[in-house]
Amino acid sequence: MTNRTIEYTDKYTPLTRVEIIEAVQQTMSEQRMQHVLRVEETALQLAEKYGADLEKASIAALIHDVAKQQEDSEMRDIIISENLDLDLLQYGNAIWHGPVGAVLARRQFGIEDEEILRAIENHTIGAPEMSLVEQVIFVADYIEPGRDFPGVEKAREIAAESLSEAVKYEIRETLKHLIEKQQRVYPRAIESYNAWVAE
Amino acid sequence: MTNRTIEYTDKYTPLTRVEIIEAVQQTMSEQRMQHVLRVEETALQLAEKYGADLEKASIAALIHDVAKQQEDSEMRDIIISENLDLDLLQYGNAIWHGPVGAVLARRQFGIEDEEILRAIENHTIGAPEMSLVEQVIFVADYIEPGRDFPGVEKAREIAAESLSEAVKYEIRETLKHLIEKQQRVYPRAIESYNAWVAE
Repeated sequence: MTNRTIEYTDKYTPLTRVEIIEAVQQTMSEQRMQHVLRVEETALQLAEKYGADLEKASIAALIHDVAKQQEDSEMRDIIISENLDLDLLQYGNAIWHGPVGAVLARRQFGIEDEEILRAIENHTIGAPEMSLVEQVIFVADYIEPGRDFPGVEKAREIAAESLSEAVKYEIRETLKHLIEKQQRVYPRAIESYNAWVAE
Repeated sequence: MTNRTIEYTDKYTPLTRVEIIEAVQQTMSEQRMQHVLRVEETALQLAEKYGADLEKASIAALIHDVAKQQEDSEMRDIIISENLDLDLLQYGNAIWHGPVGAVLARRQFGIEDEEILRAIENHTIGAPEMSLVEQVIFVADYIEPGRDFPGVEKAREIAAESLSEAVKYEIRETLKHLIEKQQRVYPRAIESYNAWVAE
């Protein structure tokens, strides 16, 4: 795997790639930052293979977890002040760091592009309709080379053949896992499941 | 199993038990009517064991499937004219016969008791909060002696020990089954799952 460098235009953010990395790494542990860089690398491979915009994929990947290690109280403030779905408050960081991350992407990184924002917003639970860049980030976060869980190899094999099949597999397996573990399911995740998986 | 007879008061319906049975059997096949009578028998056993109202359990059991073999077009008319959840329209009879059955129970059988109506309404997908009678109908429909599917014996064993544990088991297994079969999940079923099963 080559660690490719993307030169950013000024179409999507006033910042350079290095400036985004520097800003993002101040919000998270070194370990999580390594995950973010692996997601970017995987996202670029998928974007190239499936014809998604490389620059958008890079930006969305670098910013996707920017809310992951924020204080819960700040996250709740944003959910309420930005009129996000208030049902989010009944869930935890695992669910809300996507939508809150999209808010921070707009505020702190000057991102206005809806496809990038939606890729960050929906990277955990998906959405009934997902653009190529959204699908790329959703799948890259699941299969980046640091991931190690039962089924991840299968997910990588599917992603090498079909991006949309990889999305379906990820949605179905994630839901099955939650139910086996008797964990709460955010109802909007069911909308993704119904749209992508159910027949 | 004794086929017990319940004498109805006039508290919940102007009809006698025999009149209800005669009206219900005109709406469905003989085979389904036998299912209904088995659900009533099982519901009475559970109601006696767990202290639920026997008369309410009998009435709800007899009427619970009254909408099961109605025409789809009539069902849609009722969903729309009665201001039921319009998302129901994206699903099929399997989901909507409960809510529509509750409407028919009110219209055609003069039932006003909210506990009976809710037991009919929620007998398929459950609800975050369920009264004893609701739980009795929900479980009786799943374990009545004519049911034969993997896990039904386990459900019967659990129901012999704890009604609420049987509710949890049924909700979890039903959801797992849908996902394994890649079938659509009505989002309100997730609310039942989150309330009863998830930790």
